[in-house]
Order: sequence, then structure tokens, then C-alpha cells
Amino acid sequence: MARGYTIGIDLGGTNIKGGVCDAEYRLVAQEEIETQADRGPDHVIARMAGLVATLISKAGLSAADIAGVGVGAPGPMSHSAGMIYHAPNLPGFVNVPLRDRMAELTRLPVTLENDANAAAFGEFAAGAGKDVRDMVMLTLGTGIGGGVVLGGQLWRGAFDNAGELGHTIVVPGGRPCPCGQKGCLERYASAHAVAERVREAVQAGEPSSLRAKALAGDDFDARDVLAAQAAGDALARRIWDEACFHLALAAVNIQHSFNPELVVFAGGLIRAGEVLLGRVRAHFEALSWTIAPDRPRLALATLGTDAGTIGAAALARS
Amino acid sequence: MARGYTIGIDLGGTNIKGGVCDAEYRLVAQEEIETQADRGPDHVIARMAGLVATLISKAGLSAADIAGVGVGAPGPMSHSAGMIYHAPNLPGFVNVPLRDRMAELTRLPVTLENDANAAAFGEFAAGAGKDVRDMVMLTLGTGIGGGVVLGGQLWRGAFDNAGELGHTIVVPGGRPCPCGQKGCLERYASAHAVAERVREAVQAGEPSSLRAKALAGDDFDARDVLAAQAAGDALARRIWDEACFHLALAAVNIQHSFNPELVVFAGGLIRAGEVLLGRVRAHFEALSWTIAPDRPRLALATLGTDAGTIGAAALARS
Repeated sequence: MARGYTIGIDLGGTNIKGGVCDAEYRLVAQEEIETQADRGPDHVIARMAGLVATLISKAGLSAADIAGVGVGAPGPMSHSAGMIYHAPNLPGFVNVPLRDRMAELTRLPVTLENDANAAAFGEFAAGAGKDVRDMVMLTLGTGIGGGVVLGGQLWRGAFDNAGELGHTIVVPGGRPCPCGQKGCLERYASAHAVAERVREAVQAGEPSSLRAKALAGDDFDARDVLAAQAAGDALARRIWDEACFHLALAAVNIQHSFNPELVVFAGGLIRAGEVLLGRVRAHFEALSWTIAPDRPRLALATLGTDAGTIGAAALARS
Repeated sequence: MARGYTIGIDLGGTNIKGGVCDAEYRLVAQEEIETQADRGPDHVIARMAGLVATLISKAGLSAADIAGVGVGAPGPMSHSAGMIYHAPNLPGFVNVPLRDRMAELTRLPVTLENDANAAAFGEFAAGAGKDVRDMVMLTLGTGIGGGVVLGGQLWRGAFDNAGELGHTIVVPGGRPCPCGQKGCLERYASAHAVAERVREAVQAGEPSSLRAKALAGDDFDARDVLAAQAAGDALARRIWDEACFHLALAAVNIQHSFNPELVVFAGGLIRAGEVLLGRVRAHFEALSWTIAPDRPRLALATLGTDAGTIGAAALARS
């Protein structure tokens, strides 16, 4: 089938992941390489183009089989201009016309997308949202990324910045966020925030089985909090529950804003499974209105770290 | 011009407003009649059909000139089914197939829409939003209604309930709302809430020049609070400012959710003009992030009480 395949590239600060997808969004070949971000944009873009060639070969295809390449990358960026304005984890990536540079090197049509949007579109095309038309995704990692699919299309907004749901304010006057706001969702419910809030409480003198590890430093993360809450640590339970509460509150606001069929949670924190989803659902039931039966379904992402690759490939098709 | 006109009907608990619009969304005839809601749905629907005939005649047109009729009505309702599920201010309006009943009586195509959506679409088509593609509107009345226009289309959501922004939660665990939630935007920033919060504070013993009037009862409303804050009353100033703060917080969340070009404020409270908009803008500047230049413009609605009629007429065309 000529041009029946697309390629998705997921550009991260440490690694670049790539995959070839068929028309049913199945990955037929995959490859992951180091970003080598410290060597600057030219080097990184050349590596991405090289990865495209590797993937075509690995899938046993030729360039003529490839309809296009989608690149999911950190932002802020412009989808319409194909430009990365500024990527904090990628040194030198300031006003880089990544789409056109990749198109020159690969001689294929290239589309550039925000990585959170790409991951959301992946779950929509082939994962938790494959049976719905409208879906909002929250990716719970270092921060909280968002993606919004309405009527089968990614909604990007007037400024290509729609779905920055980690920066909706859930606590007026709350915890300061590096974005300049206070009380952003991601300051309460990202994987990073969960660990950080435990550390702050321990530093303020709250007792916890996590005391030594939390104070020791870098090794300490949300997995430790998850384990400690399972073992009955009161501080870990409170912080974990508050994260679930704020995710539920965000889901209520998503319900009344977009009114989607489905809200999907993705990212590192969902390794907790039902300990996350069950508690978010319980808070959501308690927080949400009773006057109309329009609650979205809440679900966990199913594609894991392949969502960004598959989504970028799907966007190269759409 | 055959079928160059559409009719918009704005169904309220007290009055029914109607208008004939040309293709540029100009009102060429208008009429307002009593709803006589206490006489039940059959009577009200017959009055609406009669109003359509009156409007056609008043505009000097015939039915052949009318492409369709749009009806904006209170909900909950289903646009796709053309059905009002339950309208608290219209006795007997429970599961009423209003669209099809009106189509039978008028022999014209009829579309049914949520009144807040119709008003938002009116401002989009012919008012504050006529030069943008993406717009979110908040109508500050007894409650707070919302409407969302994305890419030139009304966004209704998977359950026809999108844009219920008055019920986004702005204060976790905050003021109880009849909807069953706590801390809804409309419990802080509707015209009703502004007066109610002053009354509650006075009842709790806070000093205010509004004391006597607030305790006297029904006559007391947001206009009194506006006048008192202009005269320097400290309580009125605080409550008014908090309303503006929460509207600004809602605007931040709209920014990061829909990322529209424009947020429009409508409804009775905007008679305050700059005393509302200026303060909302100041809070918005202080609350919103500094890492991307994607703030929507904030503006007041321009069509007043005609927005619902014009919007319903515009929806009959789209």
C-alpha cells in the first residue's frame, strides 16, 4: 500500500523515540536513541532525520510508503508555524523552525505538535479514547500536561495553547508555580508535586516514615509516597489523597467546560492504577453536580510511553 | 431575496422575545409578548408560533422568505433531540419536544438551543465577538451561564452541556450551590451572589451602609452593592472586588482550557461597565501566567438583551 504508513517522533530532553504506524495506528517498527541535547538544535534535528531513515529501513519500507512524519516536542511552540519557541530541556531550542528543517532533511511532509497534545491524540486514536469522539487527557509527570480532542479533532486554541490544564487554578492564592501563577493544578497533583509536598511537610516537622528518604534528596519521588501510603503512613495518605481530590476537581471543571465523554489520566503517576483512579473517581462523585447526568467517564491511559509516538504518527495522517 | 431571513425566539419565564434577522444578523423586526407560563406548555408553544406569524407580518415578509426559526430556551435540554428536559421557570416543561411541536405549528425548520448558548452565539455573530473565531461568554445574571464558540461553531459537548462555566469550581469546599456542588463560580460572581453575600455579611454583623436595605428583603440587589461601593462602603467594595477576582480566575482557567481569542462578559452585572471590566482585567493580569503571550482579550457584550434573539436567529441559519 503506497503511502499507507506514517512516522511519529517523540522528542524528549534525554531520548528521542520513533515509530512507524500503519493506517490502523499499529506500530510496525520502533526505535529509541539518545537526544544528545547538549550538542544543540542542528545536531538533534540531524539525529531525528537519521531516526526517520532508520525506521523506514527497519520496517522494510521505502520513503515512498510514508505519507508523513509527525513530531511531538516540548513547547511553547506554534503548530501552525512549525516552530519551537523555547524548550527549557533542549539547550538552544529558541525559535527553531523544526518542521521545515525536518522536511528539508527527510523530504517528507512534517507536522509539529506539542508533546502533550501528541500523547492525547495517540490515546484518542489507538488507546483509552479509541471509541469516543470527545476526550480530555491529563498527563501526570514532572508537571501536568493536557490535551483536548473535540469531535475527533485536536483542539489547539487561538494561540496553539489550549489544554494547558496543569495550569488551571484549583486553589486561589495557593502554591506558587514557576509559570508565575499560584495554585495551579500541577502544584498539587503532578508526580513531582506529590513528592515535593511530602518533603516540605517533613521539613516543617510532620512525622512520617518517609522522613529520612525525603530529606536525603534526589532519590525520593512519587513512588515512595505511593508505597508509604499503602503501608499506612498518615502524611503520605493525606498528600496522595489531596492529589486525587484536586484531579477530581479538575475533572469537574473539565466536565462543565468541554463536556467530553471521557477524561483520561496518563503519565508516571498512573502506575498506581486503582489507588489513583479509584480515589479520583470517589472524589469526583462527591464533588460533581447532581442536576444532569453528564459526567464524563474517567479512565487510565493504555498506551504507556508509546502514546506520544503513535499520536505524532496519527497527526501526520490527519 | 427568497429565504434570506431567519427568526429568533428567546423564551423566558416572564416574556417571549422574538426578532427577524437578515443575512447580516440585523434585526428588521422585533416583538415581545408575555409568556403566560402558568398556562402550561401547549399554550406557551402556541404563543411562540403566533409570535412567529406576527413577526413575519411585521417585517413585511411571507413565510417563503424565512429560512428557519431558532429558539433559545432555558434548560437542561437536548439540542440534538430538540427537547426541553426540565425548565424550572416554566411550569410543566418536562420532556417537551419543543422543536418538533414548533415546526408543526409554523411549518418552518426549527432549531432548539440553550438560552446561554444562543446569547453567546448572538454576540459572536453580531456583537462583541463578530471579528473573532473563538470566544467564550459568561452571562452574569441570577446565575452564571456560559457559551463557547470554537472555530466559528458553538461547542455543545458530548452531553449538550458544554460551557456550564458558572458551575466550574473556583473555591474548593466553598459556598454550597443548589446544583449540589460547593464553591461554584456563580456563588461568588453572579448578580444574585453579590447581593446575597452582602446580606449574609450584614446578618453576621459586618457594618455597612447597606444594612437596612439588605435586611429589608427583596428589593435589594447587585445595583445597590454597586452604588454603595462607589460611595466607599467597605463591605460592598470587598464583595464586589471578590466577584471580580473570581471572574478573573475563571478567565485564567478559560485561557488554559479553550485558549480563545476573547472572553465576553454579559448579563445584568455588566451595567457596571468599567467598574466591572477594569477590575476583572486588573485581577486577570495579576493572576495569569507570564510564560506565554496567550491571554484572551476581555470585553463586555454589546447587544444587551437582544443577544438571545439574534443568536437564535443566527443558529437557525448555521
